Amino acid sequence: MYIGIDLGGTNIAVGLVDDTPKVIAQASRPTLSTRPYEEIVKDMAELCEEVAIKGGCSMAEIQGIGIGSPGSVDSKAGVILYANNLGWSNIPLVEELKKYFPAIPIAVENDANAAAYGEYAVNGNGAESFVAITLGTGIGGGVVLNNQILRGCNGAGGELGHISMVFDGEPCTCGKVGCWEAYASVTALIRQTKAAIEANPDSLMATKAAEEGKVSGRTAFEAAKAGDAAAQKVVDAYLTYAAEGIVSIINIFQPEVLVIGGGISREGDYLLNPIKEYAKKYVYGAAFCRTELKIASLFNDAGIIGAALASVQ
Amino acid sequence: MYIGIDLGGTNIAVGLVDDTPKVIAQASRPTLSTRPYEEIVKDMAELCEEVAIKGGCSMAEIQGIGIGSPGSVDSKAGVILYANNLGWSNIPLVEELKKYFPAIPIAVENDANAAAYGEYAVNGNGAESFVAITLGTGIGGGVVLNNQILRGCNGAGGELGHISMVFDGEPCTCGKVGCWEAYASVTALIRQTKAAIEANPDSLMATKAAEEGKVSGRTAFEAAKAGDAAAQKVVDAYLTYAAEGIVSIINIFQPEVLVIGGGISREGDYLLNPIKEYAKKYVYGAAFCRTELKIASLFNDAGIIGAALASVQ
Repeated sequence: MYIGIDLGGTNIAVGLVDDTPKVIAQASRPTLSTRPYEEIVKDMAELCEEVAIKGGCSMAEIQGIGIGSPGSVDSKAGVILYANNLGWSNIPLVEELKKYFPAIPIAVENDANAAAYGEYAVNGNGAESFVAITLGTGIGGGVVLNNQILRGCNGAGGELGHISMVFDGEPCTCGKVGCWEAYASVTALIRQTKAAIEANPDSLMATKAAEEGKVSGRTAFEAAKAGDAAAQKVVDAYLTYAAEGIVSIINIFQPEVLVIGGGISREGDYLLNPIKEYAKKYVYGAAFCRTELKIASLFNDAGIIGAALASVQ
Repeated sequence: MYIGIDLGGTNIAVGLVDDTPKVIAQASRPTLSTRPYEEIVKDMAELCEEVAIKGGCSMAEIQGIGIGSPGSVDSKAGVILYANNLGWSNIPLVEELKKYFPAIPIAVENDANAAAYGEYAVNGNGAESFVAITLGTGIGGGVVLNNQILRGCNGAGGELGHISMVFDGEPCTCGKVGCWEAYASVTALIRQTKAAIEANPDSLMATKAAEEGKVSGRTAFEAAKAGDAAAQKVVDAYLTYAAEGIVSIINIFQPEVLVIGGGISREGDYLLNPIKEYAKKYVYGAAFCRTELKIASLFNDAGIIGAALASVQ
């Protein structure tokens, strides 16, 4: 048994993970991130004990505790170098949690990397090279090579959303312009959908958005499926941006498996098939590309499972 | 002592490499690539013996022979899967060369990866993560992580030149449009310089090109250094393209060391300093970036040294 801790800016979610690997018990508390970190870690420790009890096992049976944290993480030292949304810098997270569980191996990973490791454990089929991409509010990613997470020298490796896409393009949250994330995240899709609604106020897409009172990452996809030409244009453009970034990633890693997760991945084959087609055409040396493209399967559990398993990596 | 073989479309260059690692003896022959591969390998074997004699050692002292080959390479099997400029597919290169030297470890790598490994051996300072980029006729690259070349599952990993740069941009040799290579290779710089000369026929850059009877990768750089405003514009735009791609690569790998080679790298600090400035500003979480950016030092020897050392990796 393992425990995975998904530390977010809003909630601390903790799960007991078995060898399958599956989350068999879960508990969470609000992070209340302005508190001293010692209090947050105390809550983590209590949540660990809570999920162990819920899962019917003792802490002595726990083989490892892993934390997925936002920000730059020094996994070797067990320190959060910097996490913007927690207001943390140089927090000795592992050392602090060790005070509660001195006999259990404890490790910390960047949250996107932990989630990628979770997908790798479940969907990687032991691949020597594996990439996970999350098309969510932003674009996250993680790379696993020879069963090792690609961390880079500062724990911030695998920022796949911040590769170039459109020179001199839209501003990105990272301070640069034109990043992939600024074109193929859900946030970008919503922006693209809103612009298309403004230009096509009579479209089905516009009607749907008005009915729902908001524009979401599903608005354009649903209207396109119902035959709306303006929405189809939005979806086609979005899929090209998504595919173009995935081709760049394949050209770099030529991974055995590349898994696409995040909110938009719920579109399934409707998302996956056009990306496969695009990759077949445009990957460098496409005839020799052996990358298997798949939709992620773990969704929210990926972070907990990945952090749990990475603790004994 | 090791032997490195740099197999090109035009020449086979073979070098004897000592432990420094330095090339201490060299020999070459034309590839004549339309011949049966067995004949090409026979030449390789003879060149190996030639450099050993030149270097004053016997073949018994050779600890490994490494070949850097263009194209997709299955290093595990020792097979060239596909090399366009040799007209090869599925060539058992290692097996064939083993016939001449059955007692010596022999390995084959993609040539760009071999060159990256050579730079890593000399300039990597034992870095856990290392990237080499070649701004040449195209943009080549290689990645070394934990002393392992990043090969991908088909031997074609590390095609760093074929990440996106300009959406819907200039056509690239790979069949896609808008790749980094189509904006920051020497070929791209020459295209950009020619366009600027046409628009600025009275510029110093235009005069220089007319005097030399051609436009090269140096034309704009030299005219800019001499104060030509139009040339400076070309150089500034080129440097931004180069830097933008390097920022993407850093965001993915956060390598300890990133080395820039290829023809344009002879510009030294004139190239490196603006790229460093750009990276300092635009790398994701730049304040925590620890990547050391350097100019490559091996130039033409990188392939031979890298192939030689990779043979015993």
